[in-house]
Amino acid sequence: MSAAAPLRDPPPLHGVPLREHVGLLLDSRRRGYALPGAFFRDEALFAADLELIFGRHWLFVASEPELPEGGDYRTYDIGPYPIFLLRRDDGSIVAFHNTCRHRGTRILQQPAGVVGANLVCPYHRWVYDEAGRLIGCGASELSAPMMGLRLKPVHVKRLAGLIFVCLATDPPEDFDAMAAQMEPYLAPHAVPRTRVAKQIDLIEQANWKLTIENNRECFHCAGHPELSRSLFDFFGEIHEESLSAEERAAYQCFQTARQDAMAGWQRAGLPWQLIEKLHGRPTGFRTDRLVLNGAGESMTLDTRSASSRLLGKFTDARLGSLHFHVQPNAWFHFLADHVVTFATLPLAAGRTLVRTTWLVDAEAQEGRDYDLDNLTRIWVETNRQDATLVEEAQRGVASPAYEPGPLVASEFMVGMFHSWYEERLRAALDL
Amino acid sequence: MSAAAPLRDPPPLHGVPLREHVGLLLDSRRRGYALPGAFFRDEALFAADLELIFGRHWLFVASEPELPEGGDYRTYDIGPYPIFLLRRDDGSIVAFHNTCRHRGTRILQQPAGVVGANLVCPYHRWVYDEAGRLIGCGASELSAPMMGLRLKPVHVKRLAGLIFVCLATDPPEDFDAMAAQMEPYLAPHAVPRTRVAKQIDLIEQANWKLTIENNRECFHCAGHPELSRSLFDFFGEIHEESLSAEERAAYQCFQTARQDAMAGWQRAGLPWQLIEKLHGRPTGFRTDRLVLNGAGESMTLDTRSASSRLLGKFTDARLGSLHFHVQPNAWFHFLADHVVTFATLPLAAGRTLVRTTWLVDAEAQEGRDYDLDNLTRIWVETNRQDATLVEEAQRGVASPAYEPGPLVASEFMVGMFHSWYEERLRAALDL
Amino acid sequence: MSAAAPLRDPPPLHGVPLREHVGLLLDSRRRGYALPGAFFRDEALFAADLELIFGRHWLFVASEPELPEGGDYRTYDIGPYPIFLLRRDDGSIVAFHNTCRHRGTRILQQPAGVVGANLVCPYHRWVYDEAGRLIGCGASELSAPMMGLRLKPVHVKRLAGLIFVCLATDPPEDFDAMAAQMEPYLAPHAVPRTRVAKQIDLIEQANWKLTIENNRECFHCAGHPELSRSLFDFFGEIHEESLSAEERAAYQCFQTARQDAMAGWQRAGLPWQLIEKLHGRPTGFRTDRLVLNGAGESMTLDTRSASSRLLGKFTDARLGSLHFHVQPNAWFHFLADHVVTFATLPLAAGRTLVRTTWLVDAEAQEGRDYDLDNLTRIWVETNRQDATLVEEAQRGVASPAYEPGPLVASEFMVGMFHSWYEERLRAALDL
Repeated sequence: MSAAAPLRDPPPLHGVPLREHVGLLLDSRRRGYALPGAFFRDEALFAADLELIFGRHWLFVASEPELPEGGDYRTYDIGPYPIFLLRRDDGSIVAFHNTCRHRGTRILQQPAGVVGANLVCPYHRWVYDEAGRLIGCGASELSAPMMGLRLKPVHVKRLAGLIFVCLATDPPEDFDAMAAQMEPYLAPHAVPRTRVAKQIDLIEQANWKLTIENNRECFHCAGHPELSRSLFDFFGEIHEESLSAEERAAYQCFQTARQDAMAGWQRAGLPWQLIEKLHGRPTGFRTDRLVLNGAGESMTLDTRSASSRLLGKFTDARLGSLHFHVQPNAWFHFLADHVVTFATLPLAAGRTLVRTTWLVDAEAQEGRDYDLDNLTRIWVETNRQDATLVEEAQRGVASPAYEPGPLVASEFMVGMFHSWYEERLRAALDL
Repeated sequence: MSAAAPLRDPPPLHGVPLREHVGLLLDSRRRGYALPGAFFRDEALFAADLELIFGRHWLFVASEPELPEGGDYRTYDIGPYPIFLLRRDDGSIVAFHNTCRHRGTRILQQPAGVVGANLVCPYHRWVYDEAGRLIGCGASELSAPMMGLRLKPVHVKRLAGLIFVCLATDPPEDFDAMAAQMEPYLAPHAVPRTRVAKQIDLIEQANWKLTIENNRECFHCAGHPELSRSLFDFFGEIHEESLSAEERAAYQCFQTARQDAMAGWQRAGLPWQLIEKLHGRPTGFRTDRLVLNGAGESMTLDTRSASSRLLGKFTDARLGSLHFHVQPNAWFHFLADHVVTFATLPLAAGRTLVRTTWLVDAEAQEGRDYDLDNLTRIWVETNRQDATLVEEAQRGVASPAYEPGPLVASEFMVGMFHSWYEERLRAALDL
Repeated sequence: MSAAAPLRDPPPLHGVPLREHVGLLLDSRRRGYALPGAFFRDEALFAADLELIFGRHWLFVASEPELPEGGDYRTYDIGPYPIFLLRRDDGSIVAFHNTCRHRGTRILQQPAGVVGANLVCPYHRWVYDEAGRLIGCGASELSAPMMGLRLKPVHVKRLAGLIFVCLATDPPEDFDAMAAQMEPYLAPHAVPRTRVAKQIDLIEQANWKLTIENNRECFHCAGHPELSRSLFDFFGEIHEESLSAEERAAYQCFQTARQDAMAGWQRAGLPWQLIEKLHGRPTGFRTDRLVLNGAGESMTLDTRSASSRLLGKFTDARLGSLHFHVQPNAWFHFLADHVVTFATLPLAAGRTLVRTTWLVDAEAQEGRDYDLDNLTRIWVETNRQDATLVEEAQRGVASPAYEPGPLVASEFMVGMFHSWYEERLRAALDL
């Protein structure tokens, strides 16, 4: 499948070329500290983010159960690029730029829908087949300049039921290595045999990097009372000697639960070793299987399974939560009974879409097998709380008086995200 | 009448002068193809459009029945220029910049209204006479610097009841030649003896050039089921040998109707010859009298007259539809029983006002002589459909992956519009 | 107390440095005339206004009764700078930049509220004491880079119960001289012993300079029927010989009332001499005690006191209206029975907040001592009328056809404001 969108020449900014402008911003960053304010509101850097980060990396946009049947499509706006995903009748999934080869109209106009054998642009009825080839044009025949025209393809990769796209001509090649490592972790949760129980779009009035930073640490989790019920409050390296008596008791309890859980994971043949490749490569990712608190079954208020139908071939509900994170735009929680996917897409320098999707076993019925409110409650509340936090951060970092402060130890993944981000821009701009 | 607004010096853009910037964009256009995406969203080009296209050409803003009485005024925003039209007591129509010579306040603040003998600025009560001369200033006398101040005039021309304005100091001189040619076509429809049955403002989230392009071809008319009832689907050069049997039958039917109609037009002494001067001159225009389908009387769902009172001295309703188009901003349908005028004004690079006005004979009464819904239905529906089409085009051409495609034969007027647009910018910038 | 926000380097604009750009605009101004249109809509000049005018001068933001108790806070956005005022338990008032020293989040998020002994950032629970010192960080101890961090302070000055802030490192030093002169005028009105009867925020779709200009002249007051009941229509120098018979009678009446009033002011030991230092210094100000029309007691529809409890130790209600104006953002009316404060803050080049606050004696009870509608009516109506005027001015001056007109004699304070504005920009940019 050939290349996608040609990249625009970076425009000069106030006489300063984009490359130099981004270089100066990156130079102003101090390692181990929060990012300077311009990283969250500079319009030129945002344009670079769209083009060089979102335009050149693998992005998670949907999971397979969002397009269950042949003919199902979904449309997306990746920055200024309208694209669509299409499930073909043979079960394969393809993606194209959603712009007619005639006068550019968006061909598929709904967020999701079903098409027949061909795609027809609603403006002048130019007709494309499933492979994107122009095969007709209203009543008239194709003229010479129309011959051979086809919708511009977008690269697609699948990983255990998760669908990723990449707009670049030459997408990062390390996706397959990630997929090979992650497949054994993810496949047992059987995403292709799930269905969507709920999908919620939330728009945060904040830069996408604040959304990602927020996801990369639990230093702020005291502000999430619902989430805190199922999570143990121990992340990163713990120094037992510095814990209070109460904390030490909790830590012992955590250690015991973790030993039990690991024994169970081993019995079930589930991998659980931490993989942390968050920087030093284009497709930064990380996975970790966390033991859960309380009953230890799921991310619910009572820490028990939300759905009585476990995923795939699971028989034991106490599998903890497999966390998976792929830079730049997605994270996932894989539980025994359900999966939650999160995809972020930047809408403007200070505006970000967060799409949360809850997947349950394809046979699970609402009311009988699960209660929708119980299934979704924790992340509905936690997302809402996070939206307020990142929006207040956006307002604060907009101040010329803001000066980046030191990160703490438990924010190590925030630092890794910063490193990855800097590496990727420097690589793209040859800085 | 002296000159209007001084033109601003084109500001340099990112170090590139506007002139060079526009030149590079024009050079990137490929003849016979759709326009590159930047033509529809580049902010600098949009500024050039406002200044060099809308600021220097004749614009249709109203027809005479919109200001029937002495003292009637209407206000308009031509890009950043607030102006107003005023019917004087002697029946003449004048236009001024709607900005007080004191501290700039808009003097007339409603979309339409009636003024007394003088115009009074509501801020500090500076008073102007009908000729725009400052004649008073609240309670105090005019000081020396106030003497001789007058509202800045805007050029006005009338053509058979249609009112055009031009903001330029030296308006294009070819208006009168167009008027001389068009007067015999338009005058029989007696616009000055009509009244406004309905006026609807529609805002399209699209560049004004997409609005005009949409109007310049009927290649997309299959998407207009209501409009298609009265229009024959034959535009431009038709090659009979390439038609299907069904199409050929329809074409024969069209040819017969056209022969009949032309005979009727000749009997009625109505000119009907195509005039196509869409480019090669500042005031690009085109007229064509189309035969209508079905009963052939009017652009209605049943193709019969909407109003029982025909316009002017018409006695035969089967006069077809006289189409008239004036670049850059207007088109018209003149029927035996009513006239529909369309004026577009750009509001932003991606936002355009389309004002549609239905005129009926001054004596026609709603309910008795016409049904308002029947009169307006086709263009209400068609405008709504077109708004969706151009808005989806705007979203599609915003993609960096959009690549202009080839125009088809029936889009010849789109190509002529492109040529005119390029010519006018090159002339204005001496490119 | 140490310095506040570092000022940003002026960015170059389209290759033209900000300094040169502002210099060219200032050069284009003609003394004795309205300001050129760019002064009200140029984005670069607006950025300069925020940084050099609002970022470097004393701004009135609140009066003491808005923060009556220890722990009371109020938040403000001064252009891009979120700040807050805090009343400490010892009664002092401090101001800080409202951005956490960790990752920049706004610490106080409501427009007004109450805090405990410490300030806690809601994101990661960094804790600051009342002096702004970082004293804790969730459960963990402060690491070395956190030691010594403190919220960045903002300068605060109080004048007879009015609270001013300044974001600059080195605030203008002439505040104290103004305070020394103004204290005898203002202190008798006892603002610290008032309470807020009403506060209304109005957003005007206009540049802040149009808001200030509007306040600086009563040439337009014929458009304020409610306000005109209490104000005599004589401002600036009056030439009796040019008055009509009717005007002369009114002027005699005004002179008589004024003689009476001055005698009363002298008896009450109240200063009333005009002080006019509107330019030639950073903190431009002006005060004038105006005699009121009718009963002469207050700015109400019936010109009688709105509140039966007079302020401070006043026993005579007929004290006229002490007008006080401080550049760039505030004006005040001090009456015997109430005080009205007005603070403007620019929100965008064409959008300005006007906050009006009515203060009555702390013991006055609504319903018993005053009727809220009667107290607020004049300025509610007048503000609404002014909003329309400045919004129509903003629309008019946006026209490239707008040409600044001559100011009249009674607009002398508008001219003084222009002079001050030009002086301050030239001083800041060394032009």
